[in-house]
Amino acid sequence: MTTGNHNLIAANDVSGTAVYGADNSKVGSIDRVMIDKRSGKVAYAVMTFGGVLGIGGSERPVPWNTLTYDTDLGGYKTSITEDQLKTAPQSQSGWENDRDWETRTHQTYGTQPYWI
Amino acid sequence: MTTGNHNLIAANDVSGTAVYGADNSKVGSIDRVMIDKRSGKVAYAVMTFGGVLGIGGSERPVPWNTLTYDTDLGGYKTSITEDQLKTAPQSQSGWENDRDWETRTHQTYGTQPYWI
Repeated sequence: MTTGNHNLIAANDVSGTAVYGADNSKVGSIDRVMIDKRSGKVAYAVMTFGGVLGIGGSERPVPWNTLTYDTDLGGYKTSITEDQLKTAPQSQSGWENDRDWETRTHQTYGTQPYWI
Repeated sequence: MTTGNHNLIAANDVSGTAVYGADNSKVGSIDRVMIDKRSGKVAYAVMTFGGVLGIGGSERPVPWNTLTYDTDLGGYKTSITEDQLKTAPQSQSGWENDRDWETRTHQTYGTQPYWI
């Protein structure tokens, strides 16, 4: 029985998925997803914004729970704002092993850390 | 501050990670991980076993919660048995959209489905 839920996707195929803002305009895309090895939860989407939100083309790790999959758009909608992106910590080398950096990032976006 | 927790990994880098059995011998490796788009949880590891457990080289989706990351081994340990692998549903085309197939798979492995 095929239920048509279509909720499963190979993690590698998430790379390149578009991300849309509150007004349904494309703001960027997902370069890769970061998994918490122990819990098996997706922790971050590392996104590129292409200068749309005024932060240039730099990579930004964004907490996964700022994204919601939208079947109509065929991509993710995000609740993050331009102000949040501008004030969030830069993705310095080693950020993925830096709990202090992660804590500040979640504070900026107002999100519940995945490790709690 | 680097805490050295090292829990985050790019999903794409999970591909190729070794999986070890109860006796710490390598039983196979992860080809790719499948994510539930809505919850952001890793639902399955699609594994190859290389004939070790008597099921040939075929791909098998294995519920993610049968795997535990082992920092000493640098890979995942699995609780699944050869009998479970042999009796689990084959990974027929379209399994990832087939809730009935998924239910039988979780029943075989005795695991809690990710959608509950």
